[in-house]
Amino acid sequence: MRLTNLFTKTTKNAPADEVSKNAQLLIRAGFIHKEMAGAYAYLPLGKIVLDKIVNIIRAEMNAVGGSEISLTALQQKDVWERSGRWDDDVIDVWFKLELAGGVQLGLAPTHEEPLTHLMKEYIHSYKDLPVYPYQFQIKFRNEPRAKSGLMRGREFWMKDLYSFSRTMAEHEAFYEKITASYLRIYEQLGLGSLTYKTFASGGSFAKFSHEFQTVSPVGEDKIYVHKAKNIAINEEVYNDEVLAELGIDRSELVAETAVEVGNIFTLGTRFSEPLQLTFTDEDGSVKPVIMGSYGIGPSRLMGVIAEHFSDDKGLVWPENVAPAKVYLVSIGSPESIAHADALYDELSAKGLEIIYDDRDERPGIKFADSELMGIPFRVTVSDRLLADAKYELTIRTSGETMILTRDQLLAKLS
Amino acid sequence: MRLTNLFTKTTKNAPADEVSKNAQLLIRAGFIHKEMAGAYAYLPLGKIVLDKIVNIIRAEMNAVGGSEISLTALQQKDVWERSGRWDDDVIDVWFKLELAGGVQLGLAPTHEEPLTHLMKEYIHSYKDLPVYPYQFQIKFRNEPRAKSGLMRGREFWMKDLYSFSRTMAEHEAFYEKITASYLRIYEQLGLGSLTYKTFASGGSFAKFSHEFQTVSPVGEDKIYVHKAKNIAINEEVYNDEVLAELGIDRSELVAETAVEVGNIFTLGTRFSEPLQLTFTDEDGSVKPVIMGSYGIGPSRLMGVIAEHFSDDKGLVWPENVAPAKVYLVSIGSPESIAHADALYDELSAKGLEIIYDDRDERPGIKFADSELMGIPFRVTVSDRLLADAKYELTIRTSGETMILTRDQLLAKLS
Repeated sequence: MRLTNLFTKTTKNAPADEVSKNAQLLIRAGFIHKEMAGAYAYLPLGKIVLDKIVNIIRAEMNAVGGSEISLTALQQKDVWERSGRWDDDVIDVWFKLELAGGVQLGLAPTHEEPLTHLMKEYIHSYKDLPVYPYQFQIKFRNEPRAKSGLMRGREFWMKDLYSFSRTMAEHEAFYEKITASYLRIYEQLGLGSLTYKTFASGGSFAKFSHEFQTVSPVGEDKIYVHKAKNIAINEEVYNDEVLAELGIDRSELVAETAVEVGNIFTLGTRFSEPLQLTFTDEDGSVKPVIMGSYGIGPSRLMGVIAEHFSDDKGLVWPENVAPAKVYLVSIGSPESIAHADALYDELSAKGLEIIYDDRDERPGIKFADSELMGIPFRVTVSDRLLADAKYELTIRTSGETMILTRDQLLAKLS
Repeated sequence: MRLTNLFTKTTKNAPADEVSKNAQLLIRAGFIHKEMAGAYAYLPLGKIVLDKIVNIIRAEMNAVGGSEISLTALQQKDVWERSGRWDDDVIDVWFKLELAGGVQLGLAPTHEEPLTHLMKEYIHSYKDLPVYPYQFQIKFRNEPRAKSGLMRGREFWMKDLYSFSRTMAEHEAFYEKITASYLRIYEQLGLGSLTYKTFASGGSFAKFSHEFQTVSPVGEDKIYVHKAKNIAINEEVYNDEVLAELGIDRSELVAETAVEVGNIFTLGTRFSEPLQLTFTDEDGSVKPVIMGSYGIGPSRLMGVIAEHFSDDKGLVWPENVAPAKVYLVSIGSPESIAHADALYDELSAKGLEIIYDDRDERPGIKFADSELMGIPFRVTVSDRLLADAKYELTIRTSGETMILTRDQLLAKLS
């Protein structure tokens, strides 16, 4: 895309009330706009990054047999009363509102209840199991503190998948499968080496649930990392009994601050019992469906990535989620600009995603913006370079700069 | 997709409280689930249809220079008070709610105010104009009557594009461009011949706004259609003065009931004045930005298409939005099933979208479901047909059935 066609601009300053680094950088680079604490609009470049994260997650969900759906934000209280979660003391982040006729509604902070209720239409027999519906949906949570930018939202994107299984064994096999799937997602997002499958408190149906925690100085959780085993233990279950069960000694663990970037729960019959989601098994007996839930927040992940992959010059996107692979800068005479125009067309035709800085601006401003926006590769076309039939390639992660022939450049970018 | 992997099922009956034909059919076919009046969940097949509609619209918006963004549903009252639209007497479909701290918020029923406010960050000079941000976003409207299925929602998908222009001439040129774009969208959705650019009341900045009205017996609007000119006049401006202005005689018009499937407005400075969105023009003078808004509802369109393209057997999707092009039915012996399996793999590999009815069900049930789901082409593989090395192809629109060789079948489907 040509920068002259992009309406956003970079800016030196984020809003004074924005205290999180991820939102400060994303606002300064023109990726997002702060509507209020915990609610951000996605501008063109931010929308591209968010969509890339969503698409990486979607591919993994489809690969484990997920079926994409989209539930409603508006909720009637009936099913939530049956599970006991309509009460503001049980879920303390409800937004409640009213229909014109006076009926009270809520904005879904999560979707176990409506989906469990919905599945009663479709699950009757053991032959209908297992099934794995999932969605990307805006969740609403009335968070009292929302100071972490995209990392804690009042209105945010969530991928939530729910499993409906016939037996605990079937459930557990899927649980392992999606654990592997989640780890692949973090790997693709560039967070693999920082993210640990973390043992957390379970509930009535499993000793543990599992979080995926990314080590970060701004995280709100404390975890104990076992690097060799590539796992961690959440503070809430960090005790002798759990350590013994996992065969781990305290001395092997390193305490870290981390941010939760995913969580998977064995729900068992927590929702299928009160909402009466049952099936008839092969032997004719009627049983409640075994459920699990698997959450991952694309907008939070965007915040975590922005927070982690950044330096004093700005954002440093991993290639898989960058809004473009190449930032093309033209400097100098009309001939250089014409040459850059042609290169832009040629590389675009090859399918390369390019931000072409075709503005009438000084080189220093173009370079600074390419760094603030965090585009992986910068290519410069200038009179001096063209005199030698060369191009300058600068790598955002290392700052390394190379002077390359056309063939060398194309090889590097392909 | 294999039907045995799809968790939804068809059903003979829609919920008793569902009075609209579009929702009845979509629920019976397993495309949507009714959460409450005016709020529907999209199940796997419904999500595919909705996404196809969205993608047709997106391609047209990008083609006219649109930049995709995503604004927030949560709204603070400040900017809406400045435009005078926070008041429930002015916008009578607000959902209002409260932050934990007691601050009142609203759920955006439309987005002129927050976007106008946001653009103050990015529009300063005439060089920053024109720009065309758009979004696909869930809108919330506290509709007192929501009895038309997907055609009138309390929570529904809207594409809203906003134009920010330097002059009325620039604005009008874009207005004509997007008019043509909208007509192309309806054409691609199969609604072209039923949908008229309709003159409606304008406001302070233009004599008319324009609606796009699709003739439908369940529409809530009355329009007067001029078939030869391919335009219509909304009842609200159907008077001698307007007819004279358009050079039309009453005798040339036919009264029709219709549903509004899009609308475009010249907003002028209605929002840029109170919200102070101004720019410095080339001569140094400071002027308010000229705005327009352009709405089209993907979920309403899905309802209109379902309502119109249906018969006593069920839905009849136009090919561009059908959840699959082919419904493949296997009947009979293990050999026939193996043959159908191979055909499914082969056609899928060619990129054809197929619903493969691999269930252990009677042929009559499979045929009825293919009709209820409204898939354009049904291909049947059976022992009797295979004995002659033939396939049966049935066209959903006409019910026409052909017995074809393999080459003939592949030619018909490609």
